[in-house]
Parts: sequence; structure tokens; C-alpha cells
Amino acid sequence: MAVKFGKWDIHEYEIFWKGVLSYAMVNTKPIVKNHLLVCPFRVVQSFCDLNKDELSELTFAVSRITRSLGPCSVAIQDGREAGQTVPHVHFHIIPRPETGIVEVDSNAKQRTAEEMSEESSHLKSFINFS
Amino acid sequence: MAVKFGKWDIHEYEIFWKGVLSYAMVNTKPIVKNHLLVCPFRVVQSFCDLNKDELSELTFAVSRITRSLGPCSVAIQDGREAGQTVPHVHFHIIPRPETGIVEVDSNAKQRTAEEMSEESSHLKSFINFS
Repeated sequence: MAVKFGKWDIHEYEIFWKGVLSYAMVNTKPIVKNHLLVCPFRVVQSFCDLNKDELSELTFAVSRITRSLGPCSVAIQDGREAGQTVPHVHFHIIPRPETGIVEVDSNAKQRTAEEMSEESSHLKSFINFS
Repeated sequence: MAVKFGKWDIHEYEIFWKGVLSYAMVNTKPIVKNHLLVCPFRVVQSFCDLNKDELSELTFAVSRITRSLGPCSVAIQDGREAGQTVPHVHFHIIPRPETGIVEVDSNAKQRTAEEMSEESSHLKSFINFS
């Protein structure tokens, strides 16, 4: 099955978890280290388009990721007016340091496949989804 | 059953929706109009403490609220370092105007019971939870 994120094809090396209805991936332009995305396989724009099974699995994945990562901001930009740039509903998971101060890299460049693959492999071994 | 939000007692007039495991309320100090909160009845601090049934019902409520309100930012501050001030996990729902620009009232005062009751009554009639 091709894995889509909006109109984009997502490579296997970007994905660190797959469920039945949803998946989690690293970010091509993370604003902080381990800025991750969780979304449904089904390409739907809005949070309200998700069915109950998708909601349940998606949020369970978010729960397990935040349990492993520690303090996080979890955010959904639901609609273009809310800053959504890819019309495919997704949770952002943004780890927060102990200081609470996030040093955001707003000029982040597109990362290489090697960089994303390395982070994804680490997350696969690090995050406990059970 | 007393409805708690962390150590706080929440009045009936603040609540516009109750499920089996969770509820939705207006905000005492909203940063924008209709800045709402959704949380479990059970007082737990972290997103990862929620069980599957709580996650399912909570996110279904968020889905129905955003369907009615239109474009929204949906956010969870998971942990003190992420800006969580009440140690009781909750979703913020923050409507976004068509311009995408939110005029945040960062000096919002505690609202009166009448103001909150009025908003809550409107939301009860406005938001379709079916």
C-alpha cells in the first residue's frame, strides 16, 4: 500500500510506526528534535472527517509516543486558517525541554534521507507501543 | 458526581457537554471567543494516562466541536514544561478566524458566571454531537 501524506508519497524510512489505520513519521523540516507527525492512512483533511476507529488508533499512538518522549506539545492545525499546510489531518508531537523553552529552528532545511532514516530507526527501538 | 478540573470544582453552568467518561466546558479566561476545553472526568495529569475508552470519547467530542466551529487549533500541553498549568489532561480548542490571525487577549480577566453560562447555553444548542 502506498503511504500518502496529502499529495506526497512517504518513504518507508520516514515511518517509525504503522498501525491498521494510521502511521507515525519523522518530519522533513522539524522545528525541534523529534518533532513527529501522526496521521491516518486515509487522506482526509479535517479532524472531524476521522471515524471512531481512526481516532482511537491515532490517539493511542500519540499516547504511546508522548509516554516515551516525556513533556510534549501536541497540536492539530485543523484548517488552512489554523496554519494547516498539508490537507491531510495530522497530529504534531513537539517535545519540550525541561526548561520549557523551545528553541525553534524556523529556517530548517529539508533533511536528507539518511538523517530521517537514522531518527526513524532510533524511534522504532525507543518508543514502546505496547 | 462532582466534576473536577484538577483541584477545581467545575460548575454545571460552565459545562456544555457531558459524555460517559469526559466533558467539555467553556473557559474562565479564554484567549479568544469560544476557546473551549475538553477533558476526562477522571483526574489524570498526562495524555498517556488516559485509557482507550477515555481517548475515544474525548477525541470524538473534539471532532464534533471542531465540525461545528470550523477551523481550529487543537492543542494539548502535556506536562508542566509544555505549559500545562492544571495537572488534569485537557484539549484546548481555539477557533481561528478566516484571516488566520488570532487576536489573543493575553490579559483576559476571570469571567462572570453569567458570561460563562450564556456561552455554555449557546454551545449546547449550537454544537451537534450526534
